[in-house]
Amino acid sequence: MRISELSARADVAVPTIKYYLREGLLPEGQRTSATQATYSDVHVERLRVVRALIEAGVSIAESRRVLTALDAPHAAPQDLLAAAHAAVTPAAGEQIDLTTAQRLVERIGWHPGMCDDGVLAGIAVALDRLDRAGFEVPADVMPVYLESIQRIARAEIAGVPTDSTEAAVRYVVLGSVLVEPLLLALRRAAEQIASAERFFMTPGSDQYQPTDSD
Amino acid sequence: MRISELSARADVAVPTIKYYLREGLLPEGQRTSATQATYSDVHVERLRVVRALIEAGVSIAESRRVLTALDAPHAAPQDLLAAAHAAVTPAAGEQIDLTTAQRLVERIGWHPGMCDDGVLAGIAVALDRLDRAGFEVPADVMPVYLESIQRIARAEIAGVPTDSTEAAVRYVVLGSVLVEPLLLALRRAAEQIASAERFFMTPGSDQYQPTDSD
Repeated sequence: MRISELSARADVAVPTIKYYLREGLLPEGQRTSATQATYSDVHVERLRVVRALIEAGVSIAESRRVLTALDAPHAAPQDLLAAAHAAVTPAAGEQIDLTTAQRLVERIGWHPGMCDDGVLAGIAVALDRLDRAGFEVPADVMPVYLESIQRIARAEIAGVPTDSTEAAVRYVVLGSVLVEPLLLALRRAAEQIASAERFFMTPGSDQYQPTDSD
Repeated sequence: MRISELSARADVAVPTIKYYLREGLLPEGQRTSATQATYSDVHVERLRVVRALIEAGVSIAESRRVLTALDAPHAAPQDLLAAAHAAVTPAAGEQIDLTTAQRLVERIGWHPGMCDDGVLAGIAVALDRLDRAGFEVPADVMPVYLESIQRIARAEIAGVPTDSTEAAVRYVVLGSVLVEPLLLALRRAAEQIASAERFFMTPGSDQYQPTDSD
């Protein structure tokens, strides 16, 4: 198909497609003349993935790395998971002490070799920022974070399809990145619901009434 | 204290402090002359919060809204929770069908009035992007997301301090925004651990060996 049809089918404007081509996010079409190329269903599908990544706030450079992971031939799922994480885990620019992060993930079953330093650095940076903002996760909330996140990750990894490498790759790479906004949005909804339950709602009633606390 | 001492104590460069002052992220100091002002501990603490927000990837405009919520006098915790969410929930630019999002949050106890349309729109946008990328959350993973996120939110809201409004505000506003990177980083670590358990590790052994699947 011509670029105009590709644009219509993927619902992405032609100049945007040309930008993605220049940025290497989309493979070149098959040249039919000096100024024309034809595109296939592969391009339609890839455009959907690119758009989803960009709209999810993933940068051009990170998207390129995620797509490279997606294209890696015959990679094993665990290597792709590592590639996906590496792609979206910004290298720590500063020297970070990983001790606290290590101790934290030990509580969800980690031991050395099971997760890489980039991921540990991500945790260390997040903890450091909370600390510098003067915010402390309450002692009885942290275990709930660890247990709940572990349940989420186990369910996700149990769901990695094993019938085809391509399906496994898609699932691991896209699931890792694109599910993040969903989880954050669900948390905000759940916080509002829990807040309404604690501060507004009388148990067993359909009416919302201010209450002191429970 | 002078701006140079504020800079040293908060570990933020003077030009950056001036930028934050211009952007309204930091209240003006007390003028002592046409070109000088003095700053207090309030400024040191505020600078730490600003830096944590910016470093967590919150935009200048969003940070300003979060800080406004933080400064709102005598607001009730549930109003502040709403303000914090509104501040960090980008208004949906497009018309979004909220039906699927509503049905999803009904499963974690929502009914109308318990969470606002901005939060529902966030869920709807996240689901829409997954859909357009051709990614489907497996049917047995979604309930785990909902239950785990609900446990997280309940623990967080149960921890809202009630001894002072200021403490409640700080907890709700900062916890809502600044904990996000921690949860995402923990999920990545937990995914790597779960992946190592499923694809690499022989149960009961300290050695990692490739296995078919479990």
